[in-house]
Amino acid sequence: MKIRVLATGGTFDKEYNEVTGALYFKDTHVREMLRLARCGLDVEIRTLMMIDSTEMTDLDRELLAKSCAESGEDRIVISHGTDTMAETARFLGERIRDKTIVLTGAVVPYTFGSSDGLFNLGSALAFAQALPSGVYVAMNGRCFDWDNVRKNRSTARFEEAGGK
Amino acid sequence: MKIRVLATGGTFDKEYNEVTGALYFKDTHVREMLRLARCGLDVEIRTLMMIDSTEMTDLDRELLAKSCAESGEDRIVISHGTDTMAETARFLGERIRDKTIVLTGAVVPYTFGSSDGLFNLGSALAFAQALPSGVYVAMNGRCFDWDNVRKNRSTARFEEAGGK
Amino acid sequence: MKIRVLATGGTFDKEYNEVTGALYFKDTHVREMLRLARCGLDVEIRTLMMIDSTEMTDLDRELLAKSCAESGEDRIVISHGTDTMAETARFLGERIRDKTIVLTGAVVPYTFGSSDGLFNLGSALAFAQALPSGVYVAMNGRCFDWDNVRKNRSTARFEEAGGK
Amino acid sequence: MKIRVLATGGTFDKEYNEVTGALYFKDTHVREMLRLARCGLDVEIRTLMMIDSTEMTDLDRELLAKSCAESGEDRIVISHGTDTMAETARFLGERIRDKTIVLTGAVVPYTFGSSDGLFNLGSALAFAQALPSGVYVAMNGRCFDWDNVRKNRSTARFEEAGGK
Repeated sequence: MKIRVLATGGTFDKEYNEVTGALYFKDTHVREMLRLARCGLDVEIRTLMMIDSTEMTDLDRELLAKSCAESGEDRIVISHGTDTMAETARFLGERIRDKTIVLTGAVVPYTFGSSDGLFNLGSALAFAQALPSGVYVAMNGRCFDWDNVRKNRSTARFEEAGGK
Repeated sequence: MKIRVLATGGTFDKEYNEVTGALYFKDTHVREMLRLARCGLDVEIRTLMMIDSTEMTDLDRELLAKSCAESGEDRIVISHGTDTMAETARFLGERIRDKTIVLTGAVVPYTFGSSDGLFNLGSALAFAQALPSGVYVAMNGRCFDWDNVRKNRSTARFEEAGGK
Repeated sequence: MKIRVLATGGTFDKEYNEVTGALYFKDTHVREMLRLARCGLDVEIRTLMMIDSTEMTDLDRELLAKSCAESGEDRIVISHGTDTMAETARFLGERIRDKTIVLTGAVVPYTFGSSDGLFNLGSALAFAQALPSGVYVAMNGRCFDWDNVRKNRSTARFEEAGGK
Repeated sequence: MKIRVLATGGTFDKEYNEVTGALYFKDTHVREMLRLARCGLDVEIRTLMMIDSTEMTDLDRELLAKSCAESGEDRIVISHGTDTMAETARFLGERIRDKTIVLTGAVVPYTFGSSDGLFNLGSALAFAQALPSGVYVAMNGRCFDWDNVRKNRSTARFEEAGGK
């Protein structure tokens, strides 16, 4: 079973620029994380964009939906910023029905000691293998349907949106 | 959905003793790992034993099977040393049919920088939620059935045993 | 020999806020770092302020100079942001002559995996013990006199200012 | 000022073998540590041996003394296992008087998250620059003369031997 990973940026992939002191994007850490994980899955990684999810437009989401639709693989994991992850999940959920698509991310960059990124990537890849077609958000060890998920802005945790 | 985690030790939970220079067990790191993961699942952690899996006897496995059978939760993750993980999976698989039990571990201790433990725990918890009743091994991002898995001793990777 | 550590903030002590995604100050990590270092020195830690060094005013520097002058210890290490570390060194160097004062910091926060902070703290404490009275900057493994040091803005490395 | 680093192994440089579960030596981490430290010193690194210090013989110490004596640099840092660090310091102290030689090491391998190695390397390089000719042990943030140091076996901390 081959899995496609589409990297879009988000906290997950942020680096610390030691000259400016700002957080920035270089490239996705997914490859390095899978090596650390001794991952034995057949994974195809593509970087679609490297942006903050607050900057993601519907044009970007169209590109993402197109990439999912045209992917040769039926199991797809998308690394995504947490701020608009639920919006992108909805966008994809309304358009793609015949693939298993799992969005995940992190609230702390992978390059920080205390990141949740490796755990989330592990759980997203597992859900992508085990779940039927549909669009999901894998965060905090849980899996949410695309039409019933939101990020709680005050706790940075994901939860049911409370009614489909 | 509540999940039970049964800790048995293994590389996963090894510490480095700075006085003797030996690796040893103190207590499971699962709680700390779930905090780092910002895990939002309802998880009940029990430490059954803290041993190397090479030292695990069938008596220990009986205890483990009993703990699974008597657990109030139907979804169970077992942290286990990798050396005899496949044997324990078989032992449980032949005895328990009505629960989803996922064994996982690590080839490098969690307290080392380069551990696969956090990734494996994330994937094990996901498989435990998503898969039907049965006993599984979650390692290297993959999920193996209890009756078709072995550890490759020369690569420290898990693979199909090659015929059920 | 007792050493006083005065914490003022800087990159060294920055944390990542997982709710807002911004870097911020909580408290100094010096205590935790000394524990990790298995430090056997008699160290007295005081947090004077927790600020970016770009925000440090001469009033703050007066407070710092006063704290150095009134300290019961003759050996002092100051954790400081790198951006104005050279300015503060000059400010102190012109005012205090009878103590050994070593400023240090980091270009990457301690809580990131790739921080230079632990190395710098080790070298600053060593220079503070071994050098005669004077004000110094300890960065990049080197030790600079207060009247001959600057941060190279394009490389984030410290160097001689090129003429006293 | 150029500094020579002589690597001999010790806990400092131990790796975890994920296939066998044993600790072993590959090569010294000093180069990688200096890169992480953004070290700006002119450092020449030589690996003399990669052994546990409990296995170090007087023949090894002769080789080490010869390497120190013949080194073009007058400032030398030696990475060394902690178990016989004091013995090697004495061996060198009785033979070499015209160079500044600082031995250091770690009680936890550098590749573990909780290592004291980076701190110790920072302090050893600083002492090597700042101290007059002599042989020293730099551990726990402190600096000991070669004829007045021992490792406390029960705490894994270094202390004065209690009388020269």
